[in-house]
Amino acid sequence: MPKLSERGRQMPASPIRRLVPYAEAAKKRGTTVYHLNIGQPDIKTPEHAIDELRKLDKEVLEYSHSAGYESYRRGLAGYYQERGIQIDFNNIMVTTGGSEAIMFTFLSTLNPGDEVIIPEPFYTNYNGFAVTTGVNVVPITSNIKDGFALPPIEDFEKKITSRTKAIMICNPNNPTGYLYSKEEMEALRKIIIKHDLFLFADEVYREFAYDGHEHHSVMNLEGVEDRVVMVDSVSKRYSECGIRIGAIVTRNDDIIATALKYGQARLSPPGLGQIVAEASLHTPKEYFDEVYNEYIDRRNLVVERLNNIEGVYTPKPTGAFYTVVSMPVDDAEKFCQWLLDEFEYEGQTVMLAPASGFYATPGLGKQEARLAYVLNKESLEKAIDALEVAFKQYPGRTLEQKETYQQENSK
Amino acid sequence: MPKLSERGRQMPASPIRRLVPYAEAAKKRGTTVYHLNIGQPDIKTPEHAIDELRKLDKEVLEYSHSAGYESYRRGLAGYYQERGIQIDFNNIMVTTGGSEAIMFTFLSTLNPGDEVIIPEPFYTNYNGFAVTTGVNVVPITSNIKDGFALPPIEDFEKKITSRTKAIMICNPNNPTGYLYSKEEMEALRKIIIKHDLFLFADEVYREFAYDGHEHHSVMNLEGVEDRVVMVDSVSKRYSECGIRIGAIVTRNDDIIATALKYGQARLSPPGLGQIVAEASLHTPKEYFDEVYNEYIDRRNLVVERLNNIEGVYTPKPTGAFYTVVSMPVDDAEKFCQWLLDEFEYEGQTVMLAPASGFYATPGLGKQEARLAYVLNKESLEKAIDALEVAFKQYPGRTLEQKETYQQENSK
Repeated sequence: MPKLSERGRQMPASPIRRLVPYAEAAKKRGTTVYHLNIGQPDIKTPEHAIDELRKLDKEVLEYSHSAGYESYRRGLAGYYQERGIQIDFNNIMVTTGGSEAIMFTFLSTLNPGDEVIIPEPFYTNYNGFAVTTGVNVVPITSNIKDGFALPPIEDFEKKITSRTKAIMICNPNNPTGYLYSKEEMEALRKIIIKHDLFLFADEVYREFAYDGHEHHSVMNLEGVEDRVVMVDSVSKRYSECGIRIGAIVTRNDDIIATALKYGQARLSPPGLGQIVAEASLHTPKEYFDEVYNEYIDRRNLVVERLNNIEGVYTPKPTGAFYTVVSMPVDDAEKFCQWLLDEFEYEGQTVMLAPASGFYATPGLGKQEARLAYVLNKESLEKAIDALEVAFKQYPGRTLEQKETYQQENSK
Repeated sequence: MPKLSERGRQMPASPIRRLVPYAEAAKKRGTTVYHLNIGQPDIKTPEHAIDELRKLDKEVLEYSHSAGYESYRRGLAGYYQERGIQIDFNNIMVTTGGSEAIMFTFLSTLNPGDEVIIPEPFYTNYNGFAVTTGVNVVPITSNIKDGFALPPIEDFEKKITSRTKAIMICNPNNPTGYLYSKEEMEALRKIIIKHDLFLFADEVYREFAYDGHEHHSVMNLEGVEDRVVMVDSVSKRYSECGIRIGAIVTRNDDIIATALKYGQARLSPPGLGQIVAEASLHTPKEYFDEVYNEYIDRRNLVVERLNNIEGVYTPKPTGAFYTVVSMPVDDAEKFCQWLLDEFEYEGQTVMLAPASGFYATPGLGKQEARLAYVLNKESLEKAIDALEVAFKQYPGRTLEQKETYQQENSK
């Protein structure tokens, strides 16, 4: 038998989904599992968008244009314009989720062996797309102590080599919930000019910017229009993760033209998803307000309760719907598996995503997990009740060491 | 500005879709364009499958499992079993169209620089997937004179090197319409054992096998279960090209596990498409019979009429809904563009796919085009009426040479 590929071997299993079999086993035993491990919100999809399917007037479910239905692209350009991002529909290529948008961006701009610098912790699947495309991710470590702000620009400069072609950010950030400031965006603008780099920004959580903070899109950086690619998706915006509709947005026509060649090879993005996404453009402001207020409440609940547990710390994120939690455990990977495999409290347990998979530097994030506050407040309360008990029962708890760490921090 | 990637530059523009702007311009001038260039059938999607969307009872359009909904995978396994392919749902991973199935198959089994042997002409996007994954396609030329049968196995052996990892076929074939015989499949079985290779078969046209010929699935080759990957899609089977639902089917668990890692990185295949595809499994036999008879009629019409045009030749395909046509023109690429750009007959013209893009060997297919008989008979008649006139008017016609070629052939 011929061997499978080396890159297939190197391809990381999703740390977010790796524990799924343990969760399934727990559920089969009758345990309720609160899924705080994955960004699958319980928020309802706008009903008028689903209604578009219910009144579908088509006899043939045909291919769309490889770049997406023109009507959807025009509508999407309008959505951006309303948010202060002045682009034309020709600057948009519709993709199969944000995932494909990242893949096509990498493939169009980076050769195998090229380097892209990404602040860590970062969305774990960036690693998968890098292995798939033969690109090397060079991490710059951000820190829980300052809420995972952009690391000092000197840290970036130290890592730039002749192979560095791009910097990539996720804004607001998954997994940290950090929202980059205008000054941080400006620092990135300067460094990509200075070192002749591309800047990719995953902005799929654009709508989720809290506490009066403004979202600063990469598309509004001046003088770098040709260097900038924005990756987007409707998954989180309208709670439509399953329809797999994303987009590449850039004013660099060569990138769009190159990405479109990849797009032609795969024929078209999902047609039904585009129908739903196009209808979703007409989602009323009240929907976003309601969702926004709901997430604010959830975040406040999660942050307050977690920080009241001995040995636990999480920053207060200003965007997205994730937070990284530092925990008094020997190994978050073991702890998360133990939660599913051996623990329950009143018939319930919690699924978290161990944070080590969000770091590219080995050894980092070993005591951290990503928590997605995607469930209703009642479920979140129960989940944290269970976690609180779990931290006391877990055989690998490290509370003594943790207290020392906290004392050091409070100096 | 940093340069775009070398692989992005090498990525071929789709020869099927390259002429789209000319077709759009023709339509804007008021010319009717018969689209025989693309495998987008006018056949209706089974109505009960679309109805599944009309009665959709969901509030959140959520991610599915990365391998696809288990209920759909179980149903799909049943579909194969009914067709004599004994597999389990665990042998199936649902993908975003057949395109992604090929990508994940290449990525899971082949390293950059590895070679896959494919009889040419072949589905042009295989080139795109090869460039994307850094794999080298090694073509073996099949011939219009014998209807594009499998080339002699010695031709394969001559091309096998230390980098050869796989042979790939499309059965029934796109673009030739050729259906591989049991003997040909057996020859492939032997050569992959002898040279320790994988065998990939794109069987998306399985249902379209004509004139009493049986389709011999790669999944039924004995003793090579671990070496075989079948690529499938619902696009053509149920005229659902736009929903983007395909599958990888293999009894090699390592390949499924590796492909699933790529699948996890992109989260899930389209959810709405899976709902339609699952409902489509219950399509009554009458639907297939009707479609089948319609395609037989169309094929007969196209083959008979084309072969009655001076200087034109096409074999009589026994599968799929394509045929490759040899034409009395200097350059099929120029001719196809001229059809859209300068020609019309009674306000109508035809769009064909120049065949050169389906060959990997430079210079081949220069007088050939692929015709997809995906329109109703009335449209096909009108399209061929127009073609007949076009062959007389085209400035680059080569009828004299063509007659010589035919005389040689008839010796």
